[in-house]
Amino acid sequence: MSLENSPSSSDRVLVTGATSYLGSRFVRRLLSEQHEVHVIVRPTSDRGRLGLPADNLTVHEYNGSIDSLLTIMNESRPDVVVHLATQYLRDHDPDQVDALVGANILFGVQLLEAMRQTEVKRLINPTTFFQFFDSTGYRPVNLYAATKQAFQDILAYYVDAHGFEATTLVLYDVYGPGDWRQKLMAAIIAAQNNGSSLPLVSPDMIMDLVYVSDVVDAFVHAMNAGITGGPYAVSSGQRHTLRDIVGAFEEVGNRQIDCKWDAFAVPSRNPTEPWNGPALPGWQAKVSLNDGVQQFLNQEAAYEN
Amino acid sequence: MSLENSPSSSDRVLVTGATSYLGSRFVRRLLSEQHEVHVIVRPTSDRGRLGLPADNLTVHEYNGSIDSLLTIMNESRPDVVVHLATQYLRDHDPDQVDALVGANILFGVQLLEAMRQTEVKRLINPTTFFQFFDSTGYRPVNLYAATKQAFQDILAYYVDAHGFEATTLVLYDVYGPGDWRQKLMAAIIAAQNNGSSLPLVSPDMIMDLVYVSDVVDAFVHAMNAGITGGPYAVSSGQRHTLRDIVGAFEEVGNRQIDCKWDAFAVPSRNPTEPWNGPALPGWQAKVSLNDGVQQFLNQEAAYEN
Repeated sequence: MSLENSPSSSDRVLVTGATSYLGSRFVRRLLSEQHEVHVIVRPTSDRGRLGLPADNLTVHEYNGSIDSLLTIMNESRPDVVVHLATQYLRDHDPDQVDALVGANILFGVQLLEAMRQTEVKRLINPTTFFQFFDSTGYRPVNLYAATKQAFQDILAYYVDAHGFEATTLVLYDVYGPGDWRQKLMAAIIAAQNNGSSLPLVSPDMIMDLVYVSDVVDAFVHAMNAGITGGPYAVSSGQRHTLRDIVGAFEEVGNRQIDCKWDAFAVPSRNPTEPWNGPALPGWQAKVSLNDGVQQFLNQEAAYEN
Repeated sequence: MSLENSPSSSDRVLVTGATSYLGSRFVRRLLSEQHEVHVIVRPTSDRGRLGLPADNLTVHEYNGSIDSLLTIMNESRPDVVVHLATQYLRDHDPDQVDALVGANILFGVQLLEAMRQTEVKRLINPTTFFQFFDSTGYRPVNLYAATKQAFQDILAYYVDAHGFEATTLVLYDVYGPGDWRQKLMAAIIAAQNNGSSLPLVSPDMIMDLVYVSDVVDAFVHAMNAGITGGPYAVSSGQRHTLRDIVGAFEEVGNRQIDCKWDAFAVPSRNPTEPWNGPALPGWQAKVSLNDGVQQFLNQEAAYEN
């Protein structure tokens, strides 16, 4: 772990996974702060998620080959690469193994190698609290988490042998308005609005929900403050039971929710409590659960998929 | 680490990398001991290296897909899988990244997943002392070693979440007669036979040379004794300088060798001393350097490529 100030070293930022929920929020923030932003998309990516065209946004297409990444790296010459691309699967089928390894390992290794060839050394690499199943050290919840650890261990080679400056950020459950993925929050809102019953797992399941703007802040802070090392927790600093979370919606929305508790089993290898690792230095989450739920309810209607 | 006796549990053995030097020796040993041996080859593999056809040898072809591995696993139903397939590169170019990840990670993950689906749980997995560059813990010499660690990370998931019983064996420099790879030994013999000068690195470079029959013994022992865990060192138990190694050839072959020392720099990140990890329990190397060189010189002419 090291702390160093390099305030002007992140003018040009290259972002992978820019059309993901978190990625699209992060890119908007960078654009608004006048960074020169380069994003890597695949031919199949939904470019609409990047928002309106902007003078300081360049979109590069990756065709699956390291050659295309070498071209992108040469054209963009970023000061920092923020590698948000990931393929998440809670559980996997055999026919999904190739895609998991391809997205979470091969693409990342191609990226590192293209950085090495063009002497781009600064990387911010998010990973997941699912790498720590009831353990302070590596113990993966699922194959997804194992592929993230595999990439981290390859990144360690580039750090040690080639002088890369990497920051590893451990993400928890990110939530916020406009999230087009089917998630818990959407189900809660639907039940609250419709008065329908809501089948849930145990009310005692513990979660660490982090509001999306706090997560974006963490990336910007790691980038601008030049913090390297990790893994650092991008945690809300609070642990809530599912009962608390539903309660926050009931309180903020001022309407009861008809929960059918224990309708499902808690998923296999779900962490009893999310990882308690060291927090990202100099950053902390600002949005409380109730404030986040308030913003969520206020803004949800304003976003479209 | 655990020791358990399951003497009859390795009747059917499935071997990957069977046409490699070590693989072909291991398969011959299994065949001679009347195991039912199944090997996985690629369309491009040189099947001649498997030796003559045998009643107890079945060759399966892998086409790159997990489906073909599922078929192979269903057909062979092995008691143990010995995963010798690997792609070694001391240094890599950008256009070799895909092949390294494909051979050393993706193929292995497909193998693990196919095992999971067919309830085959026993794996013997060799890795390399190059994972430990002047460190007792993970510190990879090169990208090759990093990909081997990445696979181990993923194997750890299958062990912890799906009850796999895995053994990780750390290999050093394996040598023996009939090795068709261009290696140090061949260069020494050529110089000794021809009287030509032999350009070498520093005479003080330390190596751990393990005779191929000792390495085959280690795999058979790990398999038959049901030893799980690791990483365990498959070390000669001796460290020799390059000067000692050339001296053994001079002594056994009774002829001086004209060494040009320091003609090359020692390769980058070469371990100052090979990894000193715990030895494989119940096994030790039997062949001394001089005996190995003797056998090497006696038998080399008898082998063809």
